[in-house]
Amino acid sequence: MKLYGYFRSSAAYRVRVALNLKGLKPEQAFIHLRRGEQKAAPYADLNPEHLVPALEVGGRLLTQSMAIIEYLDETHPAPPLLPADPLDRARVRALALAVACDIHPLNNLRVLQHLKSALGHSQEEVDGWYRHWIAVGLTALEAQLAGDARTGRFCHGDEPGLADVFLVPQMANARRLDCPLEAYPTLTRIEAACQALPAFAEAAPARQPDAEA
Amino acid sequence: MKLYGYFRSSAAYRVRVALNLKGLKPEQAFIHLRRGEQKAAPYADLNPEHLVPALEVGGRLLTQSMAIIEYLDETHPAPPLLPADPLDRARVRALALAVACDIHPLNNLRVLQHLKSALGHSQEEVDGWYRHWIAVGLTALEAQLAGDARTGRFCHGDEPGLADVFLVPQMANARRLDCPLEAYPTLTRIEAACQALPAFAEAAPARQPDAEA
Repeated sequence: MKLYGYFRSSAAYRVRVALNLKGLKPEQAFIHLRRGEQKAAPYADLNPEHLVPALEVGGRLLTQSMAIIEYLDETHPAPPLLPADPLDRARVRALALAVACDIHPLNNLRVLQHLKSALGHSQEEVDGWYRHWIAVGLTALEAQLAGDARTGRFCHGDEPGLADVFLVPQMANARRLDCPLEAYPTLTRIEAACQALPAFAEAAPARQPDAEA
Repeated sequence: MKLYGYFRSSAAYRVRVALNLKGLKPEQAFIHLRRGEQKAAPYADLNPEHLVPALEVGGRLLTQSMAIIEYLDETHPAPPLLPADPLDRARVRALALAVACDIHPLNNLRVLQHLKSALGHSQEEVDGWYRHWIAVGLTALEAQLAGDARTGRFCHGDEPGLADVFLVPQMANARRLDCPLEAYPTLTRIEAACQALPAFAEAAPARQPDAEA
């Protein structure tokens, strides 16, 4: 197993947490997104999406963090990242997808670069865009988590799972951009519970071999 | 079962196709996104994400099209929307997520409205943004599908599945915005195979009870 990642990629961060929760330690390769290594050979030939993460396994290259993590959960079922009941599974997947579809894609590096280079926005305007979509997304997540008795110490019950794996890297992005977080007491409480676990703490961007200041 | 949707929502369109493939006919409610009904009571109280689709089932409100469709596949396994092998499942989920995470969120109505109202872009610039992200995303999808022997009459083999459910509504959006499609022969071939099936054809926006010209 070989993970292609980048320390600051929020999607790669999710996969690092999932691997840690499963006790898996794949070989790692680092694709420097700010230098554009994802758009150049050899990585660009391997992954036409020009994104990280990707996981090489069984002679295949798996892409998309959610698909990779579902694969890890199917092939290494303990500890489970999804609950057993279909309605609960749908809840946990929806919480993860609220990050993966409604927040993160709008704040992806290539989108921020496009706002600057193609649409001519200033860094200040781009940062405003970033914070806007984080605020919209986290407000919805806070309401969903605070209003559901299935929320426990973690997003779903008292064990960490798929939704937590997606929440923590998104909260890290919010903190990096100095987004105000007072309005999200449930999210920050769950984030703190996760960060107390080595699987989450050791997956942090600053602790990766390719980390930069 | 009750589906909250909007004829032109690409994410609701996916769920309509999945329901048709499973032979399910839920009650329907229509949330007019352009009139802002998703942000007003009673729907806004029901779904804090202020998005469609949502599926009311078993006393719960399921959100996020991917989570809803995985739920339908788990609870109504025939015909299956995912293959049996974990590596193949990861491939099919990744193709669906390439649409759900890398194309559609950038072209969502609320994002286009924000580009206009908050960032002051013209309709022409907003259309350019829309077409840019469709071109980036479809180029990657075409490369992934054309370069993999597992692609068949449909995205994965010769039966329609999860990836097709996501591809067809995205192609409909591309056509609505007059995006050039000559560079995607595999995608247009698969799209045509899907559109020949009633499950896809009957889910089209123009054929919904709330459709407008």
